[in-house]
Amino acid sequence: MDITRVWEDLSLSEGGTIVYVVLDGLGGLPRKPGGTELEEARTLNLDRLAKESACGLLETVGPGMTPGSGPGHLALFGCDPLRHPLGRGILSALGIDFELREGDVAARVNFATADEAGRVTDRRAGRIDSEMNRRLCRKIREEVTLDFEGSYFLETVSEHRAVFVLRSPDLGGALKDTDPQDTGKRPLEPEALDERSRKTADLVRSFLEKTRPVLVREKRANAILLRGFDRYSPFKGLEARFGLRGLCVAEYPMYRGISRLLGMDIAPPPEGIEGSVESLEAHFGKDHDFYFLHIKKTDSSGEDGDFDEKVRVIEKMDKLMPRVRALEPEVLVVTADHSTPAVMGRHSWHPVPLMIRSRFARVDAVEAFHEEACLRGSLGLRPGLHLMGLALAHAGRLKKYGA
Amino acid sequence: MDITRVWEDLSLSEGGTIVYVVLDGLGGLPRKPGGTELEEARTLNLDRLAKESACGLLETVGPGMTPGSGPGHLALFGCDPLRHPLGRGILSALGIDFELREGDVAARVNFATADEAGRVTDRRAGRIDSEMNRRLCRKIREEVTLDFEGSYFLETVSEHRAVFVLRSPDLGGALKDTDPQDTGKRPLEPEALDERSRKTADLVRSFLEKTRPVLVREKRANAILLRGFDRYSPFKGLEARFGLRGLCVAEYPMYRGISRLLGMDIAPPPEGIEGSVESLEAHFGKDHDFYFLHIKKTDSSGEDGDFDEKVRVIEKMDKLMPRVRALEPEVLVVTADHSTPAVMGRHSWHPVPLMIRSRFARVDAVEAFHEEACLRGSLGLRPGLHLMGLALAHAGRLKKYGA
Repeated sequence: MDITRVWEDLSLSEGGTIVYVVLDGLGGLPRKPGGTELEEARTLNLDRLAKESACGLLETVGPGMTPGSGPGHLALFGCDPLRHPLGRGILSALGIDFELREGDVAARVNFATADEAGRVTDRRAGRIDSEMNRRLCRKIREEVTLDFEGSYFLETVSEHRAVFVLRSPDLGGALKDTDPQDTGKRPLEPEALDERSRKTADLVRSFLEKTRPVLVREKRANAILLRGFDRYSPFKGLEARFGLRGLCVAEYPMYRGISRLLGMDIAPPPEGIEGSVESLEAHFGKDHDFYFLHIKKTDSSGEDGDFDEKVRVIEKMDKLMPRVRALEPEVLVVTADHSTPAVMGRHSWHPVPLMIRSRFARVDAVEAFHEEACLRGSLGLRPGLHLMGLALAHAGRLKKYGA
Repeated sequence: MDITRVWEDLSLSEGGTIVYVVLDGLGGLPRKPGGTELEEARTLNLDRLAKESACGLLETVGPGMTPGSGPGHLALFGCDPLRHPLGRGILSALGIDFELREGDVAARVNFATADEAGRVTDRRAGRIDSEMNRRLCRKIREEVTLDFEGSYFLETVSEHRAVFVLRSPDLGGALKDTDPQDTGKRPLEPEALDERSRKTADLVRSFLEKTRPVLVREKRANAILLRGFDRYSPFKGLEARFGLRGLCVAEYPMYRGISRLLGMDIAPPPEGIEGSVESLEAHFGKDHDFYFLHIKKTDSSGEDGDFDEKVRVIEKMDKLMPRVRALEPEVLVVTADHSTPAVMGRHSWHPVPLMIRSRFARVDAVEAFHEEACLRGSLGLRPGLHLMGLALAHAGRLKKYGA
């Protein structure tokens, strides 16, 4: 029995306002000697909130599972990521406000550098700037025509990243990446993973062949790598499922993309952490009852392996927490989509700390917001998918089950 | 994989005796300043038991799920409430010792007061007494005949509550409530929710039409509201599933009804908390190996929002616990079907405390029986459905799984 379906049936269209503060990649590991990023950071305001909250830990996608950006968030929003796999291409397209239509097949593009033998020497083409990216995309669009009933799109994301979309009836989206994920190797041939995707693979092969001469004179961006193919089928949104009219406040396109996929409205992209909190303040309490505030820099500093910077980002957010708290939503959730321990320099499977502040929260003895303290919280250690049900319950938005 | 099915396969027909003490709605929330009902109550005996027990918390039905009386108990008995939804009509019928047969369709009846335009002015007919209820049911039974191959029953529960049962081959039980759940509104027309229930809806419509003239001269009980329609399919009982010959000791009909549904024997209705413990003592160790003692008043005081009364009920039960303990069952379980925090005045989704006393329990450091202390118990926080497997295991009633 899928518990999220039961919540759908029990959801009320009215109730308290919910705020999710998602500090991307917040969970960490200790730098020896010493504690985790959260333990080392001075977080008086987060700790104060923890004292007023029910605390716990979330294993967002599953035991041992290291979530990508998509799955970690889907789980927090009550959408089982194991039932709803999501290609990175789809997310990237959504993130640049590309209006995907049902059936579109999207992939993420890297401009890359290849040597004369075609072996990749730099998977990011020296991180070319967005301006050059736009120029190259335009050039390819002008010079490359595919012979099929439909259209293709090649759109800049930023730096070396772009999105490729095929629009035509009945295309499958199950294709292997052409990105070899390593230097010294040649890009892989497009390969269909099911019958329905063979035509798609042919179109991609044709696209890559026709693109090669267009880029041949480029010094850095002379190759294209594709990954994260997927076919777009919009999800049943948060409003249809749980009666929540959502608003996303996120600086980075990927997270706006996920939110759009779930039917949330999107606030104009804010700048920086303080700008993000300002945007939340500006929108709060108007047309929405679910607010998703996404903070990216905890993750990116963790991915850079920069423990001290991650501590600084956490402390910066901590200073802003009183402004979030002052909005007094009925339910205030602080958590993460996954861990990104700076000592690992990448996403990890370790559970993330969680707190739920609400007048109906069973406040526990936890006095600080970090991994170890949250272990003693009243919410326990649980799957990330549980969060939405708990948030709805605390907001008075779930009816009783059965008589 | 449904873990309860595996327990069925591994269950032995012999083994230790299990006692469940279910304090309905026991879990709570703090009254500020101060603790929860369990924290505020003086519970020397429950605390002593906690010291001798493995402790933990149960989320009886699911994350964020506020259980009704039926689902919470089904979970404790190893019957997944999400797979076995249960109409209130069925429960009410079982609770008055009505001998339901497979295929019967039952609904809960409220006698109500309606104005001249047919709008409900009191959904409970001023809580008429049971004597008047019996008189009205008898009168309707005498004067209303339905034209179909089968029979109907209208039986008093208490005050304004009764049960309506249709018995005929092949009736569906998927009908909307006719109870508008609000005053100032007319009762709703019977409406089938599937094809198979259309005949049922016609019969209900006919019953309501023919009942109207019978009640027209009544001042208070001049209307009938129906809700919680369901078709009765007996569950596979505890004995067939787990080899447990169960006995229910419960003051309130609903809980006897659930127990009957699961094939337990039913002790004569006891009076009060002490009477309930006496009944358990009188029956213990004879023909059964599973005893379910249900205490209702923890829930009803919580629903009344009466924190102090709930504390008193807990303390009263605490004083009786040595008598339960003195029976020395191989497994003694103390827990609840759901929380009913007095500060909320209704059922809630918060996990309930649990202790299992057994010579094979992994006794932990928990020194008191309340929500916060049980968080540190060796049983952890887990789904309510787990309890039956744990009880069976501690009673030596589950074989090893695999070689």
